[in-house]
Amino acid sequence: MDLMLFVAIGSIIALSFAFVLFNKVRSHSEGTEQMIKIANAIRKGASAYLKRQYTGVGVFFAVVFVVLFILSLLGYLNYFVPFAFLTGGFFSAMSGFIGMKTATMANSRTACAAQQGLNKGLRVAFSAGAVMGFVVVGLGLLDLSIWYFFLKFWYTNVEVVRSESLMIQYITSNMLTFGMGASCMALFARVGGGIFTKAADVGADLVGKVEAGIPEDDPRNPAVIADNVGDNVGDVAGMGADLYESYVGSIISTSALAVSAGLGMKGMAVPMLLAALGVIASIFGTFFVKTKEDATQKTLLKSLRLGTYISAGIIAVASYFVINTLLPQYMGVFYAVIAGLVSGVLIGFTTEYFTSDTYNPTKGLSKTSETGSATVIIGGLSLGMSSTVWPVIIVGTAILISFFACGGNVSDALSFNRGLYGIGVAAVGMLSTLGITLATDAYGPIADNAGGIAEMSGLGKEVRDRTDALDSLGNTTAATGKGFAIGSAALTALALIAAYIAEVKNLAPNVQFNLSITNPPVLVGLFIGAMIPFLFAALTMEAVGKAAQSIVLEVRRQFKTIKGLLEGTAEPDYESCVDLCTRSSQKLMILPAVLAVIVPIAVGLILGVNGVAGFLAGTTITGFVLAVMMSNAGGAWDNAKKHIEAGNLGGKGSDCHKAAVVGDTVGDPFKDTSGPAINILIKLTSMVSIVFAGLIVAFHLL
Amino acid sequence: MDLMLFVAIGSIIALSFAFVLFNKVRSHSEGTEQMIKIANAIRKGASAYLKRQYTGVGVFFAVVFVVLFILSLLGYLNYFVPFAFLTGGFFSAMSGFIGMKTATMANSRTACAAQQGLNKGLRVAFSAGAVMGFVVVGLGLLDLSIWYFFLKFWYTNVEVVRSESLMIQYITSNMLTFGMGASCMALFARVGGGIFTKAADVGADLVGKVEAGIPEDDPRNPAVIADNVGDNVGDVAGMGADLYESYVGSIISTSALAVSAGLGMKGMAVPMLLAALGVIASIFGTFFVKTKEDATQKTLLKSLRLGTYISAGIIAVASYFVINTLLPQYMGVFYAVIAGLVSGVLIGFTTEYFTSDTYNPTKGLSKTSETGSATVIIGGLSLGMSSTVWPVIIVGTAILISFFACGGNVSDALSFNRGLYGIGVAAVGMLSTLGITLATDAYGPIADNAGGIAEMSGLGKEVRDRTDALDSLGNTTAATGKGFAIGSAALTALALIAAYIAEVKNLAPNVQFNLSITNPPVLVGLFIGAMIPFLFAALTMEAVGKAAQSIVLEVRRQFKTIKGLLEGTAEPDYESCVDLCTRSSQKLMILPAVLAVIVPIAVGLILGVNGVAGFLAGTTITGFVLAVMMSNAGGAWDNAKKHIEAGNLGGKGSDCHKAAVVGDTVGDPFKDTSGPAINILIKLTSMVSIVFAGLIVAFHLL
Repeated sequence: MDLMLFVAIGSIIALSFAFVLFNKVRSHSEGTEQMIKIANAIRKGASAYLKRQYTGVGVFFAVVFVVLFILSLLGYLNYFVPFAFLTGGFFSAMSGFIGMKTATMANSRTACAAQQGLNKGLRVAFSAGAVMGFVVVGLGLLDLSIWYFFLKFWYTNVEVVRSESLMIQYITSNMLTFGMGASCMALFARVGGGIFTKAADVGADLVGKVEAGIPEDDPRNPAVIADNVGDNVGDVAGMGADLYESYVGSIISTSALAVSAGLGMKGMAVPMLLAALGVIASIFGTFFVKTKEDATQKTLLKSLRLGTYISAGIIAVASYFVINTLLPQYMGVFYAVIAGLVSGVLIGFTTEYFTSDTYNPTKGLSKTSETGSATVIIGGLSLGMSSTVWPVIIVGTAILISFFACGGNVSDALSFNRGLYGIGVAAVGMLSTLGITLATDAYGPIADNAGGIAEMSGLGKEVRDRTDALDSLGNTTAATGKGFAIGSAALTALALIAAYIAEVKNLAPNVQFNLSITNPPVLVGLFIGAMIPFLFAALTMEAVGKAAQSIVLEVRRQFKTIKGLLEGTAEPDYESCVDLCTRSSQKLMILPAVLAVIVPIAVGLILGVNGVAGFLAGTTITGFVLAVMMSNAGGAWDNAKKHIEAGNLGGKGSDCHKAAVVGDTVGDPFKDTSGPAINILIKLTSMVSIVFAGLIVAFHLL
Repeated sequence: MDLMLFVAIGSIIALSFAFVLFNKVRSHSEGTEQMIKIANAIRKGASAYLKRQYTGVGVFFAVVFVVLFILSLLGYLNYFVPFAFLTGGFFSAMSGFIGMKTATMANSRTACAAQQGLNKGLRVAFSAGAVMGFVVVGLGLLDLSIWYFFLKFWYTNVEVVRSESLMIQYITSNMLTFGMGASCMALFARVGGGIFTKAADVGADLVGKVEAGIPEDDPRNPAVIADNVGDNVGDVAGMGADLYESYVGSIISTSALAVSAGLGMKGMAVPMLLAALGVIASIFGTFFVKTKEDATQKTLLKSLRLGTYISAGIIAVASYFVINTLLPQYMGVFYAVIAGLVSGVLIGFTTEYFTSDTYNPTKGLSKTSETGSATVIIGGLSLGMSSTVWPVIIVGTAILISFFACGGNVSDALSFNRGLYGIGVAAVGMLSTLGITLATDAYGPIADNAGGIAEMSGLGKEVRDRTDALDSLGNTTAATGKGFAIGSAALTALALIAAYIAEVKNLAPNVQFNLSITNPPVLVGLFIGAMIPFLFAALTMEAVGKAAQSIVLEVRRQFKTIKGLLEGTAEPDYESCVDLCTRSSQKLMILPAVLAVIVPIAVGLILGVNGVAGFLAGTTITGFVLAVMMSNAGGAWDNAKKHIEAGNLGGKGSDCHKAAVVGDTVGDPFKDTSGPAINILIKLTSMVSIVFAGLIVAFHLL
C-alpha cells in the first residue's frame, strides 16, 4: 500500500474536524442586534480587503505564471512548475480566507458566549482558532497528496521513469515549487495584512486616544472598525497563509532531501507521515483546552499549554514507532523529531520570558518609562537584541543534535546529506503539532475582536473583563507562536538551502560548488543576504508609517467635518477608513514583495550559484536574529504598556504611560509587520532560488 | 637595503610632523582667564578619566598577559605573543592619550582663534586633529618597525631560520598578535569613552535642557564639564585607539597573507610601504585645508575634502610605482589599492547622503516629527536600515574587484590566497590616508569643545557662530569617518579570517577544514556570529542608559540642594559629575569587553576551527550591517534635530523639536557607543581567534 494514503487520510480528518468545529461555532448565538451590526461591518470590511488583495495578488501571480511558463518552454524549468506555483498560492490564500471567514463569524459569538462565562468564551474563541489551525494543516496535506499522486501517476504511466530514486527526485523537485507559490501568497498576506492592521491601529490610537481623548474601541472613532478588520486580515488571514507556507515548506524540503540522503521512498514518506500523525495528536489535544470560571491568567495559559503539550507528547511517542518501522537503521531521525519538538517549546519559553510582564525584562522595561520615551525606546531595543541569545543557542543546538544524531558526517556526501535530512525532520517535528499551536495563536485576535464588539455594543463590564482576560493571554500565545514560526523557519531554511544545492547538482552535475565562507562570491552573497532583512524591515516599517499617516488625516477630517460625532449623535464613516487602509496597504506591499522575488534572482545572475548559497545563508542567519529581536521588542513594549495600564507606575494617563505608548507604537510594526514578514522572506528567497536554479546555472556573471 | 627602513622613516616623519603641529597649536593664546579655567577643568576631568581607565585596563591586560604567558609555557603560543600583546595595547593607549592631551590643549585655543576669524579657528582645530592623525599613524608604523627589526634579528641570529618564507611567516604571525592588544585597548577606549560621553550628554540634556530649561553648554549645568570631557575621552581618545587598531590590523593581516600567496618578502613589504607613503601624502594634503572668512558650510566641507582627495590622489599614483617596482607581475594589486581608496570615498558619500540634512532622507526624517516621537523613531530606524544597502554593495564590489584583479581563483590555493591578499591590500589602501582623514574627523570634537568654552566664557555671538559652523561640519566628517572605519573593518576582517585559517594550517597541517556554509558547525558559528553584534549593541546601550540614569539623579540633586545654582550665584559641583561618569563607565565597560574576548574562545572550544571561521564571518557580516545602520540612524536623528533647530518645522521648543529630541537621544548611544564599538568587536574576535588558535586546535568538542 502506498504510505502516502495516510497523508490523504490525515488531510481529510483535519478538514472534517475543522468543518465540525466551524458548524459548532456557528450554532452559537450572535447576540444583540447591535452586535450583529458591528460584526457585519467588520466582516464586510475584511471581505472587501481580501477581495482586493486577491485581485492584486492575482495579477502578480499571473505575471509570474507567464514568466515561469516561458522559462519552462525554453527548457529552464519543468513544465509542472508554473502550475505547482499556482496551486501553492491558491491553497495558501484559501487557508487565510477560511481562517478570516471563521474569525469574523466567531467574534460576536465569542462576545455573546462570554456573557455566560469565561469558559464558554474561551471554548468558542478557541474552537474558531482551531478551525483555522486544522484548515491550514488539512489544505497543506491535501495539496501534498494531490501532487504526489498526480506526479506518481504521470511518471509511472505517461513519462515513464523506471528508477525509484529518480522518480522520488522528480516528484519532490516538482513539489518544491509549489512552496514558492505558497511563500509568495504568504508574503503578500503578511505584509499587506500587517500594514493594514498596524496602520489602522496606529491611526485609531494616535487621533482617537491621544488627540480626541476617547477610549480604545470607542464607536465614535472612525477607524475603530478598520482596527478590528485589521486583526482579522493581518493576524488571522496573514498568519494562516504564513504558517501554511511554513508547514508545507518544511515537509517538502525535507522530503526532497531523502534521495540524496539515500533514504529512498520511506525517507520521503517520514516527514509527511509525521505531519499526518500530527493531525490526530492535535485533535486529541484540543479536548484538553478548557478552564474554570474563576480562572486567572496563569490557569488560562496552563489550559492552553496543556493541549499543546499533550499533542507534542503523542507525536513524540508515535514518531518513535513510525521511524522504527520505516527507517529502523536510522533511529537518529527520531532524535531529530524530539530536538525539533523540544526546541519549539524552549523558544516559546524564552519568548514568554522576554515579553511577558510577569518576568523581569518587561517589568524593567516599564520602569524605563520614568525617564521618558527615549529611554523606553533604548530599553526595548536592547531587550529585543539581548533576547536573541537564547533562540540562537536553542536553534544551534537543535541543528547540531539532529545533524549528528542522523549520522551526519562532513567527509562523506551520503551521510552528510542524511544529517541535513535530520535538520529538516527537526523542522517538521517542530511544526507537526501546528493544528493546535495555530489554534492557540489564532484565538487571540478573535478574543480581541470580541472585546471590541462588547465595548461597542455596551455589554456589561464583566463581559469586557472576560474578553480582556482572553485577549491579554492572546498576546502571550501570539508571541510564543511567532517564536515557533521563526524557529521552524530557520531550520526549514537550512533544509531549503540543502535542497537548492541538490537541485543545482541535478540540473548541472558539472557545476563547481565552492561554498566556503572565504570564497568571495559566497562572502559577498553573505553580506547581501545579511543586508536584505534590514532593507525589508525598513520598507515594511515605512509602509506602515505612510499608511498610518493617511488614516490619521482621514480620522482628523471626520472629527472636524462630521457634526455631532464626538457627542455621539452622528455616526462616523467607518467604510472610508477601511477603504483607505485597504488601498494603501495594497499599494505599499508591492515593493517589498517584488524585492523578495527579484533580489535572489539578481544575486544569482551576478554571483552565480555559490553566491546564491551565501546569500541564502546570510538572509537566514541575520533574518532570524532580526526577526526575533523585532518580535520580542514589540511584544515587550506592548506588555510594558499594559503593565502600566494595570495600575503600575501611575497607571493610565500618567507620564509613564505616555512614554510607554511611544514604545508600543514603535513596537506595533516591529512585531506585527516587519518581524513576521522577515520570517517568510527567509523561505521565499530560498524557494525562488530553487525555482530559478536552471536559469542561474545557464546565465551568471561570476 | 631592507625595504622596511622606509617604514621606520615614515614613522619618524609622521611623529615629527605631529610634534611640529603640536607646538604650533600650543603657541596660540589660550584666551581669557575664564577660558583657561574652564579648559583646565575639562583637561583635569579627561586626565582623571584616562588615569582611571588605564588603571582598570591595566588589570585586564595583566590578567590576559598571565594567561597568554602560561599558554606560551605550555607550548600553545609562541613566547613573543604575550609581549606583542602588551605593546599593541600600549601603543593604542598612547594614541588615545596623546590625541586627548592635544584636544584638551587645543579647545580653548580654537575658541580664542575663532575670535579672529573662521579660518584661524579652522586652522587651529584642524591642526590639533592632525596631531592625533599623525600620532596614530606614526605610532602604528613605529610598533611595526620595532617588532619587524627585532624579530628579523632574532630569527637571523638567535633562533636561526634559513628559509625566507618561513622567516616571513614567523615574523608576521608574531606581529599579528600585537593586533589583539591594540584591539582590546581600542574596545575599552571606545566602549568606556562611549559610555562616558553619552551618559554625560544625555544626563546634561535631560535635566538641564528639558527639566530646568537652561540652554546647552550653560555653566549652571553641573554636567556641562562632564559633557565636554566626554567629547575628549570618547570621540577623541576612543577614536584614536580605535583607528590605531584598524590601521595596524589591516597592515599586518595583509602582510601575513603574503607567504601563503607566494609573494614573499616583497609582498609583505607592499602594505607597509603603502602606509609609509600615506604619511607623506597626508602631510601634503593638510596644507590644502584652509578657508575664506565668508565660508559657508559647503565651502568649509570642500576645503576639508580637498585635502583628503589630494592625499588619495597622491597615494594612487605612488602606489602604481611601488607595485610596479616590487610586484611587477602582479599589477592587479594596484587595482586593489584603487578599489580600496574609491570605495572609502564612496562609503563616505553615501553616509553623508543619509545623514546630512542637505539631502532628502534626513529632511524627510525631520518631517516625521510632525506626528510625534514614535514616528521619528520608526523613521530613523528605517532610514538607518535602508542606508545599509549601498555600503554593502560598495564593499561587496571592492571585495570582488580586488580578489579577481589579483588573480584570485577558487580552484588553486596559491592564486586563491593571492586574491585574499588583494582584499587585504584594498583595506590598507582605504586606510593609507588615515593621517588626514583622522585629522578631519578628530577636529570635530575640538570645535565642539571650543563652542562650549565660548558659550561658558561669554564670548561674542559671532565667535559662537563660527565654532558652531565648524562643529556642525564635524558631524558630517565624523559620520564619514565612521563609514570609513567600518568599511575598512569589513575588508580587514576578511584578511583576518584568511590569516586565521593560514595560522591554523601552520599550527596543525592535518586539521580538516570544511568551511562550507552547509557544514553544521560553520552554520551554527554563523548564527552565533550574527547574534553577537546584537548582544553587544544591547549591552553597550544598556550601559549608557544606566550611566545616564545616575547622572540624571546627580544633576537633579545638585539643582535641589545647591542654593542659588539656577540663579547663577552659586557654582555647581562639576567634579562629582565627571567622577560619576568615570566610575560608572569603567564599571559598565567590563562586561561587553570581556564578552568579546571570551565568546570566540568558547565557540572554538565547542565548535572547533570550522565553527570559529563561521562565527567570524557571521560577526563580520551582521556586525557590518548593524554598525552602519546604528551609525547612520544616529547621525540622521542628530541632524534632523539640528534641521529643526535651524528654524524649520517650528524651530526650537516646538512640538516637532521635542519629538526630534527623543530621536536624537536614542541616536546618541547608537552612533557614539554601540555602532563604533561593533566595528572593533569585528576585528577583536578575529584577533582573539588567531591568538588562541593553538589552544582550539588542541581542545575542541566538535
